[in-house]
Amino acid sequence: MSSSAVIYARENHARFLEELKALLRIPSISTLPEHKDDCRKAAQFVAAELRRMGMEHVRLIETEGHPLVYGDCLHAAAKPTALVYGHYDVQPPDPLDEWHSPPFEPTERNGNLYARGAVDDKGQVWAQVKALESLLAANHALPINVRVLFEGEEEVGGEGIANYVASKPSDLKADFALVSDTELFAPGLPTLCVGLRGMIYTEIEVRGAKTDLHSGMYGGAAPNPFVALAQIIAKLKDEKGHILVPGFYDSIVPPSKGELAAWRSLPFDEEEYRKSEVGAKQLVGEQGYSVLERTWARPTLDVHGMPGGFTGAGAKTVIPAKATAKVSMRLVPGMTPAKTFALYKSYVEKIAPPGVDVDVRLIHTGDACLIPVDNQYIQAATRALHEVWGRDTVFIRSGGSIPIVGDFDRHLGVPSVMMGFGLPDDNLHAPNEKFNLKNFELGIESLIRFMEEAAV
Amino acid sequence: MSSSAVIYARENHARFLEELKALLRIPSISTLPEHKDDCRKAAQFVAAELRRMGMEHVRLIETEGHPLVYGDCLHAAAKPTALVYGHYDVQPPDPLDEWHSPPFEPTERNGNLYARGAVDDKGQVWAQVKALESLLAANHALPINVRVLFEGEEEVGGEGIANYVASKPSDLKADFALVSDTELFAPGLPTLCVGLRGMIYTEIEVRGAKTDLHSGMYGGAAPNPFVALAQIIAKLKDEKGHILVPGFYDSIVPPSKGELAAWRSLPFDEEEYRKSEVGAKQLVGEQGYSVLERTWARPTLDVHGMPGGFTGAGAKTVIPAKATAKVSMRLVPGMTPAKTFALYKSYVEKIAPPGVDVDVRLIHTGDACLIPVDNQYIQAATRALHEVWGRDTVFIRSGGSIPIVGDFDRHLGVPSVMMGFGLPDDNLHAPNEKFNLKNFELGIESLIRFMEEAAV
Repeated sequence: MSSSAVIYARENHARFLEELKALLRIPSISTLPEHKDDCRKAAQFVAAELRRMGMEHVRLIETEGHPLVYGDCLHAAAKPTALVYGHYDVQPPDPLDEWHSPPFEPTERNGNLYARGAVDDKGQVWAQVKALESLLAANHALPINVRVLFEGEEEVGGEGIANYVASKPSDLKADFALVSDTELFAPGLPTLCVGLRGMIYTEIEVRGAKTDLHSGMYGGAAPNPFVALAQIIAKLKDEKGHILVPGFYDSIVPPSKGELAAWRSLPFDEEEYRKSEVGAKQLVGEQGYSVLERTWARPTLDVHGMPGGFTGAGAKTVIPAKATAKVSMRLVPGMTPAKTFALYKSYVEKIAPPGVDVDVRLIHTGDACLIPVDNQYIQAATRALHEVWGRDTVFIRSGGSIPIVGDFDRHLGVPSVMMGFGLPDDNLHAPNEKFNLKNFELGIESLIRFMEEAAV
Repeated sequence: MSSSAVIYARENHARFLEELKALLRIPSISTLPEHKDDCRKAAQFVAAELRRMGMEHVRLIETEGHPLVYGDCLHAAAKPTALVYGHYDVQPPDPLDEWHSPPFEPTERNGNLYARGAVDDKGQVWAQVKALESLLAANHALPINVRVLFEGEEEVGGEGIANYVASKPSDLKADFALVSDTELFAPGLPTLCVGLRGMIYTEIEVRGAKTDLHSGMYGGAAPNPFVALAQIIAKLKDEKGHILVPGFYDSIVPPSKGELAAWRSLPFDEEEYRKSEVGAKQLVGEQGYSVLERTWARPTLDVHGMPGGFTGAGAKTVIPAKATAKVSMRLVPGMTPAKTFALYKSYVEKIAPPGVDVDVRLIHTGDACLIPVDNQYIQAATRALHEVWGRDTVFIRSGGSIPIVGDFDRHLGVPSVMMGFGLPDDNLHAPNEKFNLKNFELGIESLIRFMEEAAV
């Protein structure tokens, strides 16, 4: 029961792939100033194709960084409106010598397309664009209303799109967002991500003496900021992974029994994960919770770096005047960044040892998000995926954040359908990034069928 | 009762000072490769003056770094032999804009001579050299046998002299060393430093996952090396400054009652020290011990830096594969570096939390040292100092290490008389380093009289 749009997609697949390769050849590395023009070139490439396909109001929206690409097609009266999101910028390709083929010369090998951006996110953007082309070409219309919004700063924090979304522009009015920047839980297993952890990223700055001192002369009298930080951090989380901030867990909304049961049936081997993915001698974290629960549905606390003092080779005996710890917490549904930070800050100030001043700063936040699986668009997505992949969809969460999903929710009141076609071993942000060619093809078909089902 | 050598020194003082200024104009910054020639120039300047004065066997001894300066005068039959030590190299002068006069243009102001190296250690080296000149000129002989050994790498670790001393060369045979690189406890208060703390400088490297991981995806499962280090450090020392390594304090030889009583009578105000010198809101350290006891006669533990992970501005959510803590301990008489390191290493390995591998490395050691005050050369020094300064000598210790003092003891069996004439506010290693002009003058007289008394 293939739709005419799916048939069109199959007939034109070879061309779609060549077009994707052309897009991948543009080194649109958003973090490197010398590639600023390449970022614009990639945006123009996408915009030109949207125009050619028949999307309307196509334009670049300027930001302080790289431009957004916008286009719409709003002629499906009484049908829902989708906000289709992806990003055309990519990570730097280093280390170059680990690539088996050049990062910006897309190469087919073993059923995969290798290139920087192949899966993150140009391949998935192109699957969205080509799904739209197939629908427009086969039917001379789209089954739903569509606005596309692609950004070029996802790999550098997404400030431009965040500001634009926060301004609540009328041309982002939609019923749901379609975000294609995620992956299948396992090959061949249709997957929707329906939950993301939130976060607070903080700095604890500890100051002791007014200036750096010599540990010979002053050791035993001057407070040591690193020792104080160690004492604080050791009181933030115990050795069983339990976070000790009073009230930290109080408002958590746990996953339902059904969700937990579904996670237990996922193809996941903790020992294999420990060995191949993490490579540590033992996994850590709260006892009584599986790895998927711990990384998807439990709050966690990590330290990312401790700047200050002497970090060179050899022995310098400084008692630094100050030291800092970069500490973040991942939040789960029920927790808010503001309340969590308040609890954390007041606890850190209380446990600070004698002799030091402590400054607790909030650097960055993100809201946790959870999309109810009975949402009509999620349901439409599962019908589409079942048809294309021949299997029931699995609902997973991600332990990370996709800030734009929170922004769509908070500023536009729009829930996201996170439908992506990457694979866990696609080497995102690493050498030899790839996109499975079959997933590119079935991804386009899934997106076509999803938009058709969303109209039902 | 001034000796003829003292009278000679007074009559020639203006010339001595001009010569010192000439030495100070040579920017012999040992740590900067572009000043390598200046270091040699300073060594040659000192050697030429030793030759002119009548010292014998004067030569530069080459090392892998900057040369040593040697000279001797060994004609005092049946008298003891002194090994006179100082260093001609200096610290870099940065930050330059905080100097009130150029660091390498010695300037007299308010009874002080301002220049980089004024007190550390060219001024004190020159006091030694001019004491020898005065004795040679006034008596055509020295009252004792003297070997001088000046180095040019004190500010960069002193490897050259350490290797030379370790080779136990016959031309370093001596009965005692005269080290002039210390200070008076207070202005006008003749001071001998008779104890130094030892040290072990270590690194604790903690490794978790095989590669850096994203704290969103892996937080709650992957071990965090910084959290592990914090837990380890928090178990090394409690909040009252007590070190928790089992057996750590077992072999300490405490100061005598007399020594403690003498320290209590020193002009020292803990509150003033807290406010002006340390500038922290509270001093820390073991309860029941004074600041002088804690910094001179108690072992301590400090953390100097914690390299690894993300230390830039902003928020990067990495769980680093590894992190390191630079941890040093100061040792007191009775403790040995080898035994202390063994206790520490085995304890750290025992308390390491689950999930991480720990590597405890020894980077550097130094022995604690204590010179008995009834030593005949210490007694000779107190007689000399009393005559010149009109007051009894105070015996102090230093919380730091002077590695060469340990080397002289260990390799040559030679005890050191640490007789120096700096002041606590002389800005060593800082802008506006100075040497009090009166201390330069009385320093020369003290050194002359000491060598005369050592012959008695």
